[in-house]
Amino acid sequence: MPAIVLNISTNAHKECLDLTGAVRQAVRDSGIKDGLCHVMVLGATAAVIVNENDDPNIGVDLLRALDTAVPEHDNWLHDRIDNNAQSHILASMLGPSETVPVVDGELLLGTWQALMLVELDGPRQLRRVSVQLIAGQ
Amino acid sequence: MPAIVLNISTNAHKECLDLTGAVRQAVRDSGIKDGLCHVMVLGATAAVIVNENDDPNIGVDLLRALDTAVPEHDNWLHDRIDNNAQSHILASMLGPSETVPVVDGELLLGTWQALMLVELDGPRQLRRVSVQLIAGQ
Amino acid sequence: MPAIVLNISTNAHKECLDLTGAVRQAVRDSGIKDGLCHVMVLGATAAVIVNENDDPNIGVDLLRALDTAVPEHDNWLHDRIDNNAQSHILASMLGPSETVPVVDGELLLGTWQALMLVELDGPRQLRRVSVQLIAGQ
Repeated sequence: MPAIVLNISTNAHKECLDLTGAVRQAVRDSGIKDGLCHVMVLGATAAVIVNENDDPNIGVDLLRALDTAVPEHDNWLHDRIDNNAQSHILASMLGPSETVPVVDGELLLGTWQALMLVELDGPRQLRRVSVQLIAGQ
Repeated sequence: MPAIVLNISTNAHKECLDLTGAVRQAVRDSGIKDGLCHVMVLGATAAVIVNENDDPNIGVDLLRALDTAVPEHDNWLHDRIDNNAQSHILASMLGPSETVPVVDGELLLGTWQALMLVELDGPRQLRRVSVQLIAGQ
Repeated sequence: MPAIVLNISTNAHKECLDLTGAVRQAVRDSGIKDGLCHVMVLGATAAVIVNENDDPNIGVDLLRALDTAVPEHDNWLHDRIDNNAQSHILASMLGPSETVPVVDGELLLGTWQALMLVELDGPRQLRRVSVQLIAGQ
């Protein structure tokens, strides 16, 4: 089965957006029973993570911690071209994708785990997120 | 084949625990010859990494480096609720899962690579770790 | 189908090397139409990331940011043995692997996304990189 691509718009320069509902729906629509679900943002200045979203301030704390560990501007060479070097650096540190098991037709996540898109260079009208499902034997 | 769930207890607030033996056994028990092995902790304040464990001090160094890059307390908003914001931040930075190839019925790891559970908010009586195996064609 | 192993030599103590062409070729040679492509370095002092390589300075910026966040020497315990603790720490933070969808026989990457090997303790004559392909149903 080919990858599903979710089209998502982001609203802030940096923010965390919950993808869990949309990915759960893609899993159900696929009819897959057991396997893996791979979720990847198709851009080099955003990331996909797993974390708690019951308290959305966790995403706010994460973004502030990353801003402190890697300053937004620090004579980065890439800033001379696009002025968004920090977005690329943080995207590589967090990674573009997460993979989650599918068991009995559902995502296998802990009670407090959500799939989140991390926008690092927004707002953007279109962030494409691939959802690729692989069935086990 | 459905995911196997390993039940693991942790012993310290922060520590690295070697999962390689348990995951190797799950691969052998499955009978899978070639494919992928996905290992994921089902909690938002722990992580799974790959690193050397022949010198267990690498895990100690890693935990100290993370504590320096992201202070345990720094007026994090989530600390007002659970006082464990740093654990969530570091869990997102390291990521909850790793995927390793299976070749000829065995995990394909470099000589110095081990699969490790990183406890970031322990000790916990129960950390659930999913092992999902997918056979290639 | 068993994993393909790419043999790569690195040229500097730290550097980012583009793997995209070699991985694309492995996907085409496999004949796989839809599925996942898992790329993993089989060493504990290197990493695989996805980022832009049209401006190679992004890799230079990334390596400097990591050097600042985690100093090369800071009384790390593992430095007493191998003097490369920082390489192990950064390898765990970036992670050894990335997984990318395969759609219509090609890697599904964004316009600015490249698969990169990050050497953190080179130069090395031989870095082995596994490419494991899994077809979807």
